[in-house]
Amino acid sequence: MRMYDLIIKKRNGEALLRDEIDFMVQGYTKGTIPDYQMAAMLMAVYFQGMNEDETLYLTESMEHSGDTLDLSMIQGIKVDKHSTGGVGDKTSLALTPMVAACGIRVAKMSGRGLGHTGGTIDKLESFPGFSTSLSSAQFQKNVNEIGIAIIGQTADLAPADKKLYALRDVTATVDNMSLIASSIMSKKLASGADAIVLDVKTGSGAFMKKEEDSFALAREMTKIGNNAGRKTYAVVSDMDQPLGFAVGNALEVKEALDTLNGKGPADFMELCMTLGSYMLIAGGRAKTVEEARKMLIDSVNSGRALRKFAEFIRAQGGSDAAVYDPAFLPQARHEEDILSETEGYISHIECDEIGMCSLILGGGRETKESAIDLSVGLVLRKKVGDYVKKGDVLARMYGNDTEKMAQAKERFLRAYRFCAEKVEKSPLIKGVIIP
Amino acid sequence: MRMYDLIIKKRNGEALLRDEIDFMVQGYTKGTIPDYQMAAMLMAVYFQGMNEDETLYLTESMEHSGDTLDLSMIQGIKVDKHSTGGVGDKTSLALTPMVAACGIRVAKMSGRGLGHTGGTIDKLESFPGFSTSLSSAQFQKNVNEIGIAIIGQTADLAPADKKLYALRDVTATVDNMSLIASSIMSKKLASGADAIVLDVKTGSGAFMKKEEDSFALAREMTKIGNNAGRKTYAVVSDMDQPLGFAVGNALEVKEALDTLNGKGPADFMELCMTLGSYMLIAGGRAKTVEEARKMLIDSVNSGRALRKFAEFIRAQGGSDAAVYDPAFLPQARHEEDILSETEGYISHIECDEIGMCSLILGGGRETKESAIDLSVGLVLRKKVGDYVKKGDVLARMYGNDTEKMAQAKERFLRAYRFCAEKVEKSPLIKGVIIP
Repeated sequence: MRMYDLIIKKRNGEALLRDEIDFMVQGYTKGTIPDYQMAAMLMAVYFQGMNEDETLYLTESMEHSGDTLDLSMIQGIKVDKHSTGGVGDKTSLALTPMVAACGIRVAKMSGRGLGHTGGTIDKLESFPGFSTSLSSAQFQKNVNEIGIAIIGQTADLAPADKKLYALRDVTATVDNMSLIASSIMSKKLASGADAIVLDVKTGSGAFMKKEEDSFALAREMTKIGNNAGRKTYAVVSDMDQPLGFAVGNALEVKEALDTLNGKGPADFMELCMTLGSYMLIAGGRAKTVEEARKMLIDSVNSGRALRKFAEFIRAQGGSDAAVYDPAFLPQARHEEDILSETEGYISHIECDEIGMCSLILGGGRETKESAIDLSVGLVLRKKVGDYVKKGDVLARMYGNDTEKMAQAKERFLRAYRFCAEKVEKSPLIKGVIIP
Repeated sequence: MRMYDLIIKKRNGEALLRDEIDFMVQGYTKGTIPDYQMAAMLMAVYFQGMNEDETLYLTESMEHSGDTLDLSMIQGIKVDKHSTGGVGDKTSLALTPMVAACGIRVAKMSGRGLGHTGGTIDKLESFPGFSTSLSSAQFQKNVNEIGIAIIGQTADLAPADKKLYALRDVTATVDNMSLIASSIMSKKLASGADAIVLDVKTGSGAFMKKEEDSFALAREMTKIGNNAGRKTYAVVSDMDQPLGFAVGNALEVKEALDTLNGKGPADFMELCMTLGSYMLIAGGRAKTVEEARKMLIDSVNSGRALRKFAEFIRAQGGSDAAVYDPAFLPQARHEEDILSETEGYISHIECDEIGMCSLILGGGRETKESAIDLSVGLVLRKKVGDYVKKGDVLARMYGNDTEKMAQAKERFLRAYRFCAEKVEKSPLIKGVIIP
């Protein structure tokens, strides 16, 4: 088999077979197929696309290009949840203990990643001593006994995806649904869960800005998951403004704890309920959404979800003092209210820009080596549809550097748009794709 | 400027500007733009194409990527002729002295190349002592005094084209009209002629098998040439069977000499007349095709063309004994007639296969390092449209290795197709594109 012939085949609009895709992916990972041939192939894929079969073959070949997570010692159905990412997205922190309290086993592999705030692991390091360096045996034992464990991402998870993504990034071949979906799903499949609930974000703070693109990606990913034998659901949810109110690591932890105490923001609670319902259904713990929601609300109201969270933090070496008293979370030295300079209805919040404010304050990583300041960030007071007068507090800002705070404030104010007429609030949940 | 942005631009169907194309071509040649980005760009060009301006910019940027031939000391209009190549194409050998005898200055740069037979330089080495290693001054002096000189191709002629072609060859991006045309024309422009007459071949022995593709290439190349300020003509001519009768280096030289003696094959003479007419018109020596043809025929009938050829050979160090007596040309040890095993009209000759027979006999190069046997080859006796009986001589084969001759003979016989009905001979000249 020759890569040259495969490029011609794809260029001419023909579908590649499973063994052809595997030859190409494994050869590229090993280095026997050069970058320039893969670059030509990726551009041919950009123009000719990949059908459902090809996309599955590509995903599975990348899945098997490196280590896969061993979950064989875990009993029952393992359910994973994945978000395409956004601003203020602390869902895993609150959702995972809720579903675990309802009997779902969550064996999660998480990364740190780049972004406006840290990843789930960074946020959890708000609890002193917390670590994701577990042995495979300990990891599986924790899932069996507690229902939740989070392990750091192995360096050798889907290395084909890592290498391909880096090439796509410099050859203008990122924007293809099959390539985007297979990239995400290869890592999810390698993480070993039996069922997957995807949270596909849409809007100004999401990777996919347009709702139709988000639905297309959701459909593409659920097709891959289900074709690969993992029951896969997708929820398309709004990211046209930050989720909840808090943006920043420890601030998001606090909001997640509030939510586990039944005092969370309505939109964030709604998202947890929706995603949680499909996790309970996928895991065989509930038959209907109504039944699942009742179970989830009960897990919160009874305090079981909060206790489950504390148990999980302790099991991974963390101090759970902050679970019951947020004063133990990392605290910023300075706080400042950002006041509105305009009167009117908030018509739009440039979501990415709010994320940039968190990054400026030190809450995110610009490069892999950047250190994160867990204490900084913003807590919004007003969101789209709210009416504000001049001088009303739009948000409270937390920082450790007054110069950076001044910068962030200026940027924050420019991210808000106002209008004179009442604004319709757009629904949080745009749709659900069920297998 | 970033290559990444240029890839996006082309991928999205926008036209690149002159400085963008130059940035890309010079960067790639110097190695500051990596293979993988250029591979992605080439595939994007394959799908989105290049407009007339872009194609010109690409050609001119490649032209200026290395040395260009200095023709500043040559007086008058320099006219070049270029063939896209085929089997039995000895046109330069006969045509150049004819037009030089009519007062046209031909300053030619030639390569050896790979193929069924050698290139023009290889063929000319049938004259002992002939050399193309001329100094620039000697080269220009010869053109001024004799009207013809041929110099070997510099290693640094359009290096961008060399590097790009090698990449296209392994990334399935050869088949694009703009890329093909600019590749050929960049070298022609770098060779410095004021006017160019292109011989674009079409048929089973040509790079372009289909007539419409050959016309498209001819149009693309003439547009480039004329846009670059060089008066450019193109003749589309038949290569569905070998040109003339002789295929092989010294055998083709002999046929060219026969033609200069007024005894050449009709199709070959016709091609020389057609190409020659446009060379005389482009060079300002004739006003009409009729006038030009008369001048060319007179150059042959008067013996001036043949004497011009001898003069040219001598000026480049060669012995001209063979010009007047072909017995001095390299001779093969064995000769054998290939007899027809079928009766009927010859309906088709698989032209590439006849070329392969020459290669098998040792007349061509398989790799750059191969040595060429100048003496071997074939002289056809029957071509498409001829009626043959069993046992009629189809061709005479010349070789130095009886085993290879047996192989070549078998292959030769399979290249001929016969039918019962009379076959229309297809015209040699398919069309002409005039600036």
